[in-house]
Amino acid sequence: MAVISPSVSRVDIDLGERSYPIFIGPGLLDDAATWAGLPRAAAALIVSNTTVAPLYAERLERALAPHYKTVHRVALPDGEVHKDWQTLNLIFDALLEKGADRKTVLFALGGGVVGDMTGFAAASFMRGVPFVQVPTTLLSQVDSSVGGKTGINHPLGKNMVGAFYQPQRVVCDLGTLDTLPPRELSAGLAEIIKYGPIADMAFFDWVEANVEALVARDAAALTHAVRRSCEIKAWVVGQDERESGLRAILNFGHTFGHAIEAGMGYGEWLHGEAVGCGMVMAARLSERLGTVNAAFVQRLTALVERAGLPVRAPRLASDNVGRYLELMRVDKKAEAGEIRFVVIDPPGQARMTPAPDALVGEVIEASCG
Amino acid sequence: MAVISPSVSRVDIDLGERSYPIFIGPGLLDDAATWAGLPRAAAALIVSNTTVAPLYAERLERALAPHYKTVHRVALPDGEVHKDWQTLNLIFDALLEKGADRKTVLFALGGGVVGDMTGFAAASFMRGVPFVQVPTTLLSQVDSSVGGKTGINHPLGKNMVGAFYQPQRVVCDLGTLDTLPPRELSAGLAEIIKYGPIADMAFFDWVEANVEALVARDAAALTHAVRRSCEIKAWVVGQDERESGLRAILNFGHTFGHAIEAGMGYGEWLHGEAVGCGMVMAARLSERLGTVNAAFVQRLTALVERAGLPVRAPRLASDNVGRYLELMRVDKKAEAGEIRFVVIDPPGQARMTPAPDALVGEVIEASCG
Repeated sequence: MAVISPSVSRVDIDLGERSYPIFIGPGLLDDAATWAGLPRAAAALIVSNTTVAPLYAERLERALAPHYKTVHRVALPDGEVHKDWQTLNLIFDALLEKGADRKTVLFALGGGVVGDMTGFAAASFMRGVPFVQVPTTLLSQVDSSVGGKTGINHPLGKNMVGAFYQPQRVVCDLGTLDTLPPRELSAGLAEIIKYGPIADMAFFDWVEANVEALVARDAAALTHAVRRSCEIKAWVVGQDERESGLRAILNFGHTFGHAIEAGMGYGEWLHGEAVGCGMVMAARLSERLGTVNAAFVQRLTALVERAGLPVRAPRLASDNVGRYLELMRVDKKAEAGEIRFVVIDPPGQARMTPAPDALVGEVIEASCG
Repeated sequence: MAVISPSVSRVDIDLGERSYPIFIGPGLLDDAATWAGLPRAAAALIVSNTTVAPLYAERLERALAPHYKTVHRVALPDGEVHKDWQTLNLIFDALLEKGADRKTVLFALGGGVVGDMTGFAAASFMRGVPFVQVPTTLLSQVDSSVGGKTGINHPLGKNMVGAFYQPQRVVCDLGTLDTLPPRELSAGLAEIIKYGPIADMAFFDWVEANVEALVARDAAALTHAVRRSCEIKAWVVGQDERESGLRAILNFGHTFGHAIEAGMGYGEWLHGEAVGCGMVMAARLSERLGTVNAAFVQRLTALVERAGLPVRAPRLASDNVGRYLELMRVDKKAEAGEIRFVVIDPPGQARMTPAPDALVGEVIEASCG
């Protein structure tokens, strides 16, 4: 395993023989220690997208050169709208054209879409090859690259086809956040904000006090936010890898959020934007169920707004509530057609619960601008 | 767990928490005990193909009706040529259109193609739902339905995209073999013949003595052949679920066979036909490597022929050897471009080995009609 310098944080995901480390720090792409001790293979494939590849693929290629005889590259089209089978197949095409074998290591260099698709490709190619997450967006560093959820979208639902498949390692180079557009930085803050209400209100307090520093990309603030987010996610995933219970709390805001993403057309709203707005809606539902008070909803709404995220939900159809409900019924947490929501109860803890359609409808109408 | 009658054999696959039973017997489709104790869910989906569904789907639906509130059906186009993403997606479409959830149970009713695709759909839908194998061909009863290999083909290689994903149960109703075309019965015999040379020469002797009874569908002979094949496969899979070593011996004949299937175009040769011919080629390679003698090759060739299977390999291109080698280099057992073959050493045992291209070329030329 790599020896890491004092400026680098390490968080471990404890999953028995599937355990792996997350490295967090500046300049990790060029730090030889980051890449030591990975599975040996003749070849590696860097999977990135057309936006990120020109920025970082060459540096990653140089870093991997001492470890693999050949390092191949494939750049996918950028965006959630391309998170489909057709794009996934570009990875399989590249692997087969380059003569990849069962030991070939995949490196996911990019945001959540690249990470989710590369992970699913790694899970499925020859029934499983190793892969490494190199997240370059804030959202993927604090959430999607950690925990082994991989997959693609289906026209009828987000992330409907995929696998639980853990990476060998996650490398969060904080320097890559310098090139992130402000809108994507805000999207990442949504998932950071999420961890407080579900697990750690002290962290929520800290984010409240530091959200302007985070928006301004203050290095120390970002380092703390990424590390603490990864610690909380590692704790949850370590207890419930395959989401048979506890892990579902990480979906706070995602039930409403997925409906917004699918209803608006994938890519119209960024995932983090939909989650930001979805958290406000889920908090309102919690309030109506009596598990949080109005002051908490107000606090959360204000923080989401200060992070540069939308807090008004979009209208999706003339039968707006009906459309939301229809989209939420295909959510993976639903059972026998009954939608299950993550509610906060009390702040700092979360649980899943069904809710009457009428109540959910009120929340939707109250949230739509 | 189900209580089974004396005419039903049970073989267990021992994989810790992923263990499951194989039931083998006549009339199991209509036997209530077969279906007791499966995971509870609101709905089930029977996945079959347009050939098998008219024969057996209604009976399976009736058998499942006491256990699930709704039992849906989808029929895929029949044949290896349809073992692709497009067809797989028909399963996802059906699941999402019917409002399936994470507990919905999939039932694969058909041969190897239906089983492999349904298994991969179950592995991937919402990152994993339970499934049951109900193989209706001899080949799938003795091989493909057992052991959790699932997947689809890629234009550049067979079974290149998939998952190791174990079913909850395998139900081999020997009565379904009555409707099997003779060519498909022979294809199943190829995998039965396979088990002798790699693991149990006493079983090989038995198959030699009983091959005409098997071709004539003698019930007692088929029962013994299916049960013994499943026992050997269970033993191998129990030791090496994810093919890190031993399990690869089950691929005896498959390296040459996959090249024939891909080179001729999927579906032109049945999988079992290609494996039959591939075993003769692999035995010839073993002979040239000095691990078996000419008498063994002759014995195996004669048995494959008596089972109604081809023993002469097809020419695939003007540069015939080159084309075979090219196709075999994408085999999943290959490493860093080096093809690895399953050779018999001595009869009753098998191991993997690379072999010089020249030697392999001689085998190919000697085998092509």
